[in-house]
Amino acid sequence: MRKLRMGMIGGGIGSFMGGVHRKASAMDGMIELVCGAFSSTSEKSRETGKSLYLPEDRCYGSFQEMISREKELPEGERMDFVSIVTPNHLHFEPAKMALENGFHVVCDKPMTLTVEEARSLEKLVRETGLLFALTHNYTGNAMVKQARAMVKNGDLGDIRKIHIQYLQGWMAAELDEQAAIKPWRADPKKSGVGGSLADIGTHAENLVSYITGTKITEIAADLGRVGEGRVLDNDGNILFRMENGAKGTMSISQIATGEENDLAIRVYGSKGSIQWNQEDSTRLYTKWIDKPEQTLTPDGNDIYDEVRAVSRIPKGHPEGYLEAFATIYRNFGRHLVSVLENNPIENPDYPTVSDGVKGVQFIYAAVESDKNNAAWTQI
Amino acid sequence: MRKLRMGMIGGGIGSFMGGVHRKASAMDGMIELVCGAFSSTSEKSRETGKSLYLPEDRCYGSFQEMISREKELPEGERMDFVSIVTPNHLHFEPAKMALENGFHVVCDKPMTLTVEEARSLEKLVRETGLLFALTHNYTGNAMVKQARAMVKNGDLGDIRKIHIQYLQGWMAAELDEQAAIKPWRADPKKSGVGGSLADIGTHAENLVSYITGTKITEIAADLGRVGEGRVLDNDGNILFRMENGAKGTMSISQIATGEENDLAIRVYGSKGSIQWNQEDSTRLYTKWIDKPEQTLTPDGNDIYDEVRAVSRIPKGHPEGYLEAFATIYRNFGRHLVSVLENNPIENPDYPTVSDGVKGVQFIYAAVESDKNNAAWTQI
Amino acid sequence: MRKLRMGMIGGGIGSFMGGVHRKASAMDGMIELVCGAFSSTSEKSRETGKSLYLPEDRCYGSFQEMISREKELPEGERMDFVSIVTPNHLHFEPAKMALENGFHVVCDKPMTLTVEEARSLEKLVRETGLLFALTHNYTGNAMVKQARAMVKNGDLGDIRKIHIQYLQGWMAAELDEQAAIKPWRADPKKSGVGGSLADIGTHAENLVSYITGTKITEIAADLGRVGEGRVLDNDGNILFRMENGAKGTMSISQIATGEENDLAIRVYGSKGSIQWNQEDSTRLYTKWIDKPEQTLTPDGNDIYDEVRAVSRIPKGHPEGYLEAFATIYRNFGRHLVSVLENNPIENPDYPTVSDGVKGVQFIYAAVESDKNNAAWTQI
Amino acid sequence: MRKLRMGMIGGGIGSFMGGVHRKASAMDGMIELVCGAFSSTSEKSRETGKSLYLPEDRCYGSFQEMISREKELPEGERMDFVSIVTPNHLHFEPAKMALENGFHVVCDKPMTLTVEEARSLEKLVRETGLLFALTHNYTGNAMVKQARAMVKNGDLGDIRKIHIQYLQGWMAAELDEQAAIKPWRADPKKSGVGGSLADIGTHAENLVSYITGTKITEIAADLGRVGEGRVLDNDGNILFRMENGAKGTMSISQIATGEENDLAIRVYGSKGSIQWNQEDSTRLYTKWIDKPEQTLTPDGNDIYDEVRAVSRIPKGHPEGYLEAFATIYRNFGRHLVSVLENNPIENPDYPTVSDGVKGVQFIYAAVESDKNNAAWTQI
Repeated sequence: MRKLRMGMIGGGIGSFMGGVHRKASAMDGMIELVCGAFSSTSEKSRETGKSLYLPEDRCYGSFQEMISREKELPEGERMDFVSIVTPNHLHFEPAKMALENGFHVVCDKPMTLTVEEARSLEKLVRETGLLFALTHNYTGNAMVKQARAMVKNGDLGDIRKIHIQYLQGWMAAELDEQAAIKPWRADPKKSGVGGSLADIGTHAENLVSYITGTKITEIAADLGRVGEGRVLDNDGNILFRMENGAKGTMSISQIATGEENDLAIRVYGSKGSIQWNQEDSTRLYTKWIDKPEQTLTPDGNDIYDEVRAVSRIPKGHPEGYLEAFATIYRNFGRHLVSVLENNPIENPDYPTVSDGVKGVQFIYAAVESDKNNAAWTQI
Repeated sequence: MRKLRMGMIGGGIGSFMGGVHRKASAMDGMIELVCGAFSSTSEKSRETGKSLYLPEDRCYGSFQEMISREKELPEGERMDFVSIVTPNHLHFEPAKMALENGFHVVCDKPMTLTVEEARSLEKLVRETGLLFALTHNYTGNAMVKQARAMVKNGDLGDIRKIHIQYLQGWMAAELDEQAAIKPWRADPKKSGVGGSLADIGTHAENLVSYITGTKITEIAADLGRVGEGRVLDNDGNILFRMENGAKGTMSISQIATGEENDLAIRVYGSKGSIQWNQEDSTRLYTKWIDKPEQTLTPDGNDIYDEVRAVSRIPKGHPEGYLEAFATIYRNFGRHLVSVLENNPIENPDYPTVSDGVKGVQFIYAAVESDKNNAAWTQI
Repeated sequence: MRKLRMGMIGGGIGSFMGGVHRKASAMDGMIELVCGAFSSTSEKSRETGKSLYLPEDRCYGSFQEMISREKELPEGERMDFVSIVTPNHLHFEPAKMALENGFHVVCDKPMTLTVEEARSLEKLVRETGLLFALTHNYTGNAMVKQARAMVKNGDLGDIRKIHIQYLQGWMAAELDEQAAIKPWRADPKKSGVGGSLADIGTHAENLVSYITGTKITEIAADLGRVGEGRVLDNDGNILFRMENGAKGTMSISQIATGEENDLAIRVYGSKGSIQWNQEDSTRLYTKWIDKPEQTLTPDGNDIYDEVRAVSRIPKGHPEGYLEAFATIYRNFGRHLVSVLENNPIENPDYPTVSDGVKGVQFIYAAVESDKNNAAWTQI
Repeated sequence: MRKLRMGMIGGGIGSFMGGVHRKASAMDGMIELVCGAFSSTSEKSRETGKSLYLPEDRCYGSFQEMISREKELPEGERMDFVSIVTPNHLHFEPAKMALENGFHVVCDKPMTLTVEEARSLEKLVRETGLLFALTHNYTGNAMVKQARAMVKNGDLGDIRKIHIQYLQGWMAAELDEQAAIKPWRADPKKSGVGGSLADIGTHAENLVSYITGTKITEIAADLGRVGEGRVLDNDGNILFRMENGAKGTMSISQIATGEENDLAIRVYGSKGSIQWNQEDSTRLYTKWIDKPEQTLTPDGNDIYDEVRAVSRIPKGHPEGYLEAFATIYRNFGRHLVSVLENNPIENPDYPTVSDGVKGVQFIYAAVESDKNNAAWTQI
């Protein structure tokens, strides 16, 4: 086999997510960046490409140009898939065009601005048979996978109660200071109907589903829009109910002063419970009805084999955000290789276009519930 | 001055709370136990009294007997106040009778089974001018008092968001095993309309009010009754709104498998935030918009003077549950001494009969909200 | 049985340790303070006694007066034992006189200023058959007892390696500021040949022996005397070897800037290891060759029965410094009761006069080793 | 500029360190692997090269072949530097040959088996002017750099006391099980005179020097060789003294049962202190004489600008072992680019050949001290 060839859409100089996707996709030596439409002008795009040592003729001024030009290249040179790292409102069109032109897709979350767009992508993926990965990167953590395996294997018994929080503090400052950090996040045209819901709430929703293996069916959401001139939600308190009867609370915020990136989940079952926190990502705290609290670590004692294989380095050597992100790319990459070799892996482990649909539905349900004074709303 | 004389109602051999109240009230050498109606028969009561080195004639077979007999004793011998440590349904009558007979009262929470009872005690206290302390013991922790002082002094700015959880796991086991631990907790006749709401939810509600200095005005409660044959709630997910506009989530549970006594609160303001956890009670984690996270400790650097005075021992020497409980008694005792000396302290710092009313209102509002599918309900 | 009657030597108003011993001895309702020689004048002693509600005629101006006068009191009134809470140089004489006059003794550490004094107390205890407890209070912690039980039961396998540290920062400030805190600690006439060695090093030495059940046989000590005009050690780095072949490091300091009372120990065996930290005293971290890290808690799962009985309150409710201190008094008190009832407990669990001898020997060995450029020195 | 071209020596399939160096060097998109002598036969080397998508003719059967053949390639194709990731005994020869043939060097630690070899490399580097980086990877952590900056800027005052530990447990098992993990580590011919001293002790020594900016001058080492048939040390307790008068303890072990990779350091100054632990690498705990404990985080508040620039992602997103390793490569790479562009950076920040000399001297001093019953030995 050869390295997989990636074309990037978005991620120009100064973009946080562009660098993350590049480092994550390169980590395992399986994927190489071969082209990009990094910015909205050819000149800026080329500038980014140059800093990445890309040839000038593979730096495009628009995703349309990139997709149509790459399509013309010979098979041994042409990109295999696109990685879409643009702001939310610029996910749908390039994803659609890529799929329509035979390219596989990796896309940032939330997948689209509307449920309709999300569903149409889901349809396209089904029809084309192309691969689609959504970068809910936190599910790439070894300890998240261990939690999921423990639920799946019944270690925790019946799942009864869940608490998830995703708390950041960067919007606690005044609006103009925030704008300086991530301008488009506060703009409904670019972010969609959800603010913190789209940016971090979808990660929370996805993590609950990923670990418990079941779905949130209805939510009651009390959102906040803190700060002068604030249009989109930057805070949310949410009750939820799961398909299996479990109940939970979700707290999301970008005005949680002093918090950096505090994504944390607790899942309580009839026999045991787990706690995981993204900022302390290499430990999984487990508590039990009849034995002492145990702290599990990647590659440590009593880890499921499939989870042990996630670690790139031996126990005690921390892997973090980029490694978890890289695991999404690695699993997508392995799936893609297996498809190219006509021997597709079964049950590849990365978030799909259907997770994307659920995420957008979650945003809309939360906004609607909030409008109705936190009335229960189905997802 | 002399030691204050306490008479105990409840707390017979085998009772957890009786021992706690005795140790806590004795800790500062200010209060002595002089009599008790520890059990429902004279014999059992005397047995407990004997183990406590009390004279036989001060061990009574009922609270009625104790109150009427003590009233007849000469002033230099008579108890000053009663401490009520019975199950929930046995708080109201003895408290009422004590107040009506001129005795001050310390009472366990929740104060009464119904809002009407609670209000009638509040009225009695107002009319008699007697002192009444409710043992919301967690507010006796130095770091809780530091958090309150920081809010009051504006260190955190405007309070915007709160999360509180009070999670225990002892009801995760089957019903019969639980019953062996605390039989009356599952029985509505003894516990009232609330299960976990009464036992731990009222502590959570009180702690939010104590630290923020403001009130919860409405709640949306989704309760759980987990386990075969379970009548009262043993789990609850609650949204709440505060008088000042802040919003929050509350998660309470006694089926949170593996949790011991996980009472934890987070309060987010516009300038800073605090986090406190009862199981790690000697640290207050504070996070800031413009400076690093700081960990405050009792008697450590940058503690408010009034809080430093709460500690009995120098920094680095942990005080725990009993000490916090003892601080409620100490502050009540100091207030009582000041009253007996006709020089009453202003703003004594311990939970009062009005906190008791709010607690019972909270239970009823949560039960009602839950009946209405978690509809918003005023407290 | 009746309450045990305690007479206190030292502990006048303003003394930290006096209050600690009083609260600790009172906690379990088994011991009452009946008299004291709290200060060096009758007047001051009476002032302290008054604040403790003691009768004036049981407040003495010297320990000599107290011991001789109490001896004359009728048996039903006379104190049973003395509690010595004076500075180091005032331990030996009162302990000796108490023993010679038939009183049992509880004494603060280090037991005496010299090895000869220590040995003569040991001889007196042996000859009189009276009880003698040394308040190495940290051994009263439930989790320390659990660690000891685990070593004793072979859970950890052969003990191979130990690290202990006892770090405080209060001497990091200039000498005059320190003096304001604990003036006699820096004065060799009152403190003895060891500074931090005596104050905290003996706790460290005792804790190693208590948990491992074996003795330190030789040490190599590199001491520090940090600060202008400093005479006694306030810092020490020590290698040690144990009777069973285990090796270890000890780090003690009172110039460890910012540390409060950081006493922490790690013990590594062939099968498992334990870690305990006084500032987080209700958790015992255990690590294993073939299973995940486990966190044990007082009254939690998998605690030895004898250890579970140490806790006064259920799991999740922290006990701290005073409770551990109280456990020394409780175990001493139970032993004393059993002796008074002519049915002595076997193997009572509290530090004895022999622990006191070892502590003073440790101080002298460390000082000698340091003089010889950290040469190995036998204890 | 172009990407730098790296040739790897060692790191064949199954090697842990080979993968680490490859991922770390690739992370920032600045370095590409162009050739390798991965194994001791051409065939095996080619097999590794194939899995890395390298052309067959750049996979060599020996470092000699690689260096001589690469030297003949045109400048635009030839490797720029070698990365040596072989066992300890195979560092010196390839490093020497690379330097003699004009190639820059990145080399794993310990640098060589003997002090003489180390000094001859140091001489060669001086004479050739070529760059040499030693991968003491832990110094690449942002929080380690923050600690160093704080010492350098005087934030902590005068450095007085240090404790460092590097504890692993993988040799606690029987010798044959260990051998299965890392066979050559227990073999003096391949590991040198030091076992744990070489493998982890040199990291500890280097970290002390890096953070404090001063040198260890003498040590007293009590080593352990635990386990049947064990020849090299796998445990060590060490006292040390620093050039500036500070004193410290070092505890290293590979028989610390249950420990994964517990490298932790504490540095106490006259004004403040820091604590850092590799397994919790994104937090720097700082304690102060006159303000509360502060927890610093990469890219968080109050971080020095030069340290903030180390982070690849925003605050709250953990970077771990690979990222720290990558920072060594990035800083080496930037220095190399600056040299190739004839505009050399001043004070590049990565461990050098002189650090390598000190590391080997440290091993020898420890072994000698241990032979002399832990007598003080100069480094």
